Amino acid sequence: MLQEIVHKNRSYRRFYQDVPIKLETLRELADLARLSASAMNLQPLKYVLSCEPKRNAMIFPNLGWAAYLKEWKGPEEGERPSAYIIVLLDTQIGPSAGCDHGIAAQSILLGATEKGLGGCMIATINRKELSKVLNLEPHYEIVLVIALGKPKETVVIDKVGPDGSVKYWRDDQGVHHVPKRALDDIIVGE
Amino acid sequence: MLQEIVHKNRSYRRFYQDVPIKLETLRELADLARLSASAMNLQPLKYVLSCEPKRNAMIFPNLGWAAYLKEWKGPEEGERPSAYIIVLLDTQIGPSAGCDHGIAAQSILLGATEKGLGGCMIATINRKELSKVLNLEPHYEIVLVIALGKPKETVVIDKVGPDGSVKYWRDDQGVHHVPKRALDDIIVGE
Repeated sequence: MLQEIVHKNRSYRRFYQDVPIKLETLRELADLARLSASAMNLQPLKYVLSCEPKRNAMIFPNLGWAAYLKEWKGPEEGERPSAYIIVLLDTQIGPSAGCDHGIAAQSILLGATEKGLGGCMIATINRKELSKVLNLEPHYEIVLVIALGKPKETVVIDKVGPDGSVKYWRDDQGVHHVPKRALDDIIVGE
Repeated sequence: MLQEIVHKNRSYRRFYQDVPIKLETLRELADLARLSASAMNLQPLKYVLSCEPKRNAMIFPNLGWAAYLKEWKGPEEGERPSAYIIVLLDTQIGPSAGCDHGIAAQSILLGATEKGLGGCMIATINRKELSKVLNLEPHYEIVLVIALGKPKETVVIDKVGPDGSVKYWRDDQGVHHVPKRALDDIIVGE
C-alpha cells in the first residue's frame, strides 16, 4: 500500500556503499519521473544517471549534507550513495521547473523505496563544479540531486515537541529523528 | 506496484461529480503529504480540505483549466471535482515552498489513484478571490489546488510526434491525449 511506501520513504544519508545499483534500475526510476505530471506538460526536466563508483566519487564532493547536523560533514567513505540521479532543467524548453522537480523526485524516491532502496533529495549543490564534472551543456541547470543507495541508518518520525523545533537530530545510537507536525496542525480548514 | 499507480495517475479534468469523497479520505491524503519530504524539514505547507458541494461550488470559478484546450472552459456542472485539497504556504514558517508542493501533491495524487480516484494539480488560480472564499488569514499563500474526483474521462499517453509538440489534445471520442517525451530523450548522461 502506498501509505506504507510513503512512511518507509525517509531521507537517508548513510548507505551500504558496496551494494551497487544497476543502470537499468536508475532508468526505471527515471521512467517514473517521465510519466509524472509536468506543468503545461512541458516536461523541461532531463536526467543524468550515475552508478559508476568513479563518477559517483566526482559527484559527491559537490553536495551539501544535513544542514542541521553541524558536527557531521556527510557520509564517510563506505557509507556514501551508490548512485545518483541528477535532475536538470533544460532551459531551451522552459525558463523554470516550477515544482516539476518535486513531483519527479517524489516518484523516483517512492519507486526506490519499493525496490528496497532509499535516498535523499539534495538542493545544496556546488552547481558550477558539478556542471563541469558532468560536462553539461550550458543550457542545462542543475535543480536537484537525488542520492540513492541501500540505507544503513534508522530514521524515525517524532512529533514536533513543545518548543516547536523541526530540526532533525541523531541520538547516541545514531538513530536519526525527524520531528513532523501533527495532521491537525497542518489542516487549517475542512 | 508503484509503476502501475504512476502510470494510472493521469491529470483528470472531468469527474463523476455525484460520487462524493469523504473528509476522512482527504485527511488520509493530507497525511501522505505530511509524511513526505520537506526542504530543511521546515514543513511550511498547510492544507484546506473541501468535500462539501456548496464550498466546492465557491472554489471552482477561481480555477483555470487545461490551457491548451482553447475551446473548453473547464468541466461542466455534473463533471466537476467532488473534492479539493488547497495547498497553502504558511509564510510565518518560511518565505518559499521550494518544490515541497510538488512532492506533497504527488504523494496526494498517487494516494488518490490507489483509492480509485484521480485529479489534477492546478496552478492557474484566482488567488485573491479564492483566499476570500476560503477566509484565509493573510499569512497564507495559495500555492496549488488539487482537484479530486472519480475520473470520467480516458487519458492516454502518446509519444511526442515529429513536430515536437507537447500540447495535450482531445480526439473526436473525447479521449484526452498527452504526448510524453521518450525516456532516451530525457536522459542526457548515464
